[in-house]
Amino acid sequence: MSKLQAPRGTRDLYPKDCAWRNFLLDAWRRVSIRNGFEEVDGPIFEHLDLYKVKSGDGIVSELFHFEDRGGRELAIRPEFTPTLARMVAAKANALPRPIKWFCVPNLCRAERPQRGRLREFWQWNADIMGLEGATADAECIFTVVDLMQELGLEPGHVRMKISHRTTVKDILLKLGVAEDKLLSAFDLLDRRDKMEPEAFTQAAAKLGMEPDRVERFEQMCRCKYPCGELDQLREQTGIQNLADLEQLDAQLQAFGIADWCEYDLGIVRGLAYYTGTVFEVHEASGALRAMAGGGRYDQLVELFGGPSMPAVGFGMGDVVLSEVLIDKGLMPDDVSPCPDVFIVAASDTGATQVGPIASKLRWKGIHARYSYKTTRNVGKLLKEAATARSRFALILGDDATNGKAELKNMETGDQQVIALADLEKLVTGA
Amino acid sequence: MSKLQAPRGTRDLYPKDCAWRNFLLDAWRRVSIRNGFEEVDGPIFEHLDLYKVKSGDGIVSELFHFEDRGGRELAIRPEFTPTLARMVAAKANALPRPIKWFCVPNLCRAERPQRGRLREFWQWNADIMGLEGATADAECIFTVVDLMQELGLEPGHVRMKISHRTTVKDILLKLGVAEDKLLSAFDLLDRRDKMEPEAFTQAAAKLGMEPDRVERFEQMCRCKYPCGELDQLREQTGIQNLADLEQLDAQLQAFGIADWCEYDLGIVRGLAYYTGTVFEVHEASGALRAMAGGGRYDQLVELFGGPSMPAVGFGMGDVVLSEVLIDKGLMPDDVSPCPDVFIVAASDTGATQVGPIASKLRWKGIHARYSYKTTRNVGKLLKEAATARSRFALILGDDATNGKAELKNMETGDQQVIALADLEKLVTGA
Repeated sequence: MSKLQAPRGTRDLYPKDCAWRNFLLDAWRRVSIRNGFEEVDGPIFEHLDLYKVKSGDGIVSELFHFEDRGGRELAIRPEFTPTLARMVAAKANALPRPIKWFCVPNLCRAERPQRGRLREFWQWNADIMGLEGATADAECIFTVVDLMQELGLEPGHVRMKISHRTTVKDILLKLGVAEDKLLSAFDLLDRRDKMEPEAFTQAAAKLGMEPDRVERFEQMCRCKYPCGELDQLREQTGIQNLADLEQLDAQLQAFGIADWCEYDLGIVRGLAYYTGTVFEVHEASGALRAMAGGGRYDQLVELFGGPSMPAVGFGMGDVVLSEVLIDKGLMPDDVSPCPDVFIVAASDTGATQVGPIASKLRWKGIHARYSYKTTRNVGKLLKEAATARSRFALILGDDATNGKAELKNMETGDQQVIALADLEKLVTGA
Repeated sequence: MSKLQAPRGTRDLYPKDCAWRNFLLDAWRRVSIRNGFEEVDGPIFEHLDLYKVKSGDGIVSELFHFEDRGGRELAIRPEFTPTLARMVAAKANALPRPIKWFCVPNLCRAERPQRGRLREFWQWNADIMGLEGATADAECIFTVVDLMQELGLEPGHVRMKISHRTTVKDILLKLGVAEDKLLSAFDLLDRRDKMEPEAFTQAAAKLGMEPDRVERFEQMCRCKYPCGELDQLREQTGIQNLADLEQLDAQLQAFGIADWCEYDLGIVRGLAYYTGTVFEVHEASGALRAMAGGGRYDQLVELFGGPSMPAVGFGMGDVVLSEVLIDKGLMPDDVSPCPDVFIVAASDTGATQVGPIASKLRWKGIHARYSYKTTRNVGKLLKEAATARSRFALILGDDATNGKAELKNMETGDQQVIALADLEKLVTGA
C-alpha cells in the first residue's frame, strides 16, 4: 500500500468535497425534519450476528468484520435497518407511536467498488413504524420526492416507480405460479434485467409459468401506469382487487406528487422482507442504478425480538444521487461557507489590529478571516478576499489604532470609511 | 450477545440523544467555520500501516482491525491525525497555505470502556498547517476557548493550560537530565499523576535528577502562572529565554482570552511528536480527564511522506465535554427541532385536508406535523401539539374545504380564524 492513498473504494473529502457531502446531508436532514422525522444514529459497528438475523450467513462475506479482544464478533454497519429494528425493539413499549425516525449514517460494504457503488458511502434512511395503511406509505414516498424537488430535480429527471407485493403475487398466482414458489418468483423478477431472455423463460417455466404467460407477464412489467390511472393497470393485468394500491394512489394525488410517480410492476426490490408497497427512484433514462428504494416490511421489528409492528421506510445513497445531480447541472459549484469579513492590513500599524479585531468578530459569531501574507499591497490582499468569496473586506491602515478603517462591500464594490465600533452592526446588517 | 444491545462501549442515539450529539457537532462546526477553518473528512477505516507510522506497532492492540478479501490489513480510525497528514502530504504542492482544516469524525478505540472513554466517540479536530509562529498556536487556542464560551462555559468552569516543550526541556537539562533522556523524562512527567511519589522519585533519579531537584521540579509543575505573568514563571524556573512563550502570551492577550489561560508546566501531552506549544483544557476542579488537548507538531506531515511543514492543532472529544456541560447545567433539556405547525382535525371533513395541507407546507420548507390519532377531541389533539413543542396549531373543521381554519399560536395562546391561503405567510412571518 502507499502511505498516501485512501483504502480502495473510500474517499478523501477535501474541503470542496466535504462541502458537497454536507450539502447532501443537510438537504436530507432538512427534508426529513420538515416531514416530521426525528434523527437517530447508532454504533458504527454492531455484533456480527445482528446482520445474520435479516440476511442469513450469506451476508458475512459482504461485511468488514473483526473480533475484539474479548472475542466478540463485530462488523462495520453495511446498512442501518438492523440497528433501527434493534433500537425500536429494545424500547418498543416506551416509544410513542408512530415512530418516525431518520438517519444519515456512513455505511461500509466489502464489495468490489464500481460505478455507483463504493465501499464506504452515506445513506439517508427514513422509516415510519407502528402505523398501518397507505398514509404512511405515501408519506415516505412524498418525503423522497420532496428531497428531489429540494435539490432542484423535476419529474422529467427522475421517476418514482411503485409496485405492490400483493398485486404482483395475485398476478403470479393467476399465471400459474404455486404459492410456495412466490418468493423464488420475486427473486427471478428482480434479476430479470441481468438475464438472457431464454434463461429467464426457462427459469419461469420451472416456477410453473407457461411460455405464453411468461411473455404476457413480461409485457405487464414493461408497461408503466401513471399515478391516477389504475384502471389501465386493472385492465392489463386482469386483477380486480387493487384496494391497497387504490388507497395509495388517492394519497399520492392528495399530496400533490402524482406527476412524479408511476406504477411499475417490474420493481421488486430484492429483499424478501417486503410485505406490501415497494418503490424505487430511477433517473429517467434508466441508465443508472436506483437512486433510492424502500417499501413496507411489517415483520421486521418482530424478527429482531420486538413486538409485531407495521413499518415502512426507504434508503437513498449519496453516490448515485451525486452522479444524477452533477449530470443535470444541479450540484452547486462551491457550497463552502463564505466569510462575512476578510481583514487585510494596509500598513504595519494596521497589522497589529488584525488579530484582535478578528477575534472580537469571531467571538460574536461572525465568520472572519484574514490574510497571513506579509504584503501591504491592498490590491493583492483584496484579491485574496475575493477568492475566499468574502462578503466584506475590512482594510486596516494607520487609522486602525484610532478606531477607523475602510469597509468594502465585495459584492457591490462600495467602499467607505467606518468607525470600528460600528463594524459588527454593518457586517451583520443588524 | 443479546440481539437487542449495542456493542460494549458504543451508544444508541435515540432522538433526544442524537439531538444532543448534533448540538455539539453543530457548535464545533459553527466555531470552526467562523474561525476560518474548512471542513474535511476521510475514510472510516484506513490501511493498518498508516497508524503504525506515527505510533509504532504498539498501537495495533488498541485498534479494531481486519483484513478485506484482498488480504489488505485495515483498521477503523482511532484518531484523525494520520488521515489528515496523509491527505495533506498527498496534495501538499496544490494546497494554498496556510491549510486550516477541521473535522468532526467518529473514532473507535478497542480499549476498556470507562468514565470519559468509550469505544466509539466523536472528536473535533482543527489544525493549521504551513504556518510557523505564535499566531497559529494562539489561533488554535482561541478556537478552543471560543467553542467553550459558545456553549456557555466561563473561565471559572474550565482552564486552558499551556506549556512549551522547549521551556520544559530547558528546565530538565538544567536539572541534570541528559539530552538523550529528554523523551523519557517527558513520558515520566506525563505519567506522574498515576504514580506513587517514591516511584516517581526513583524513576527521575534514573534519568539523572537528584532528589532535591525532583522536588524542585515537582514544585514548578504544581505552580500555575497566569497569562500575562511570565515573569513569575521566569523567576520560579530560572529560565531566562522564554521567547516562544512570550510571543504566545502577547497573542493570547491581544485575542482577549487571557482570563481563560494559564501556564502549567505539568502539561506534557503523552505524544512524542509535539515540538513546541502544548495545551490541554481541564474542568476547573481537575476531577475529569482533559476535555481537549493539542499543540505544535512540526514534523508530522514529513513523517507521512509529505514536505516539511509546520503544524499546530488540537482534538476535543464529545464524552468529557458532555459530562462537563451536564454538570454545569449547560446542556439544554431538549434541542430537537420544533415543528412550525401541528395540524389537527376537528371533524371528519377537516381530516380529509390534513395530508394535502401538510404536504403543501412541507414542500415549501415548513416543518409541519399532524396527529395520527383518529380522535376529533381538539383539546387532546392540542396537547399533542404542545408536547411536540409546535409553534402553531392549525385546527381543521368543516370549513377547511371552504379554505378556512383556525390557527393557534401555541406560545401566546392567541387563536384566530384564517384563510388557508394566508397560512404560509402567517406561519413564516413573511
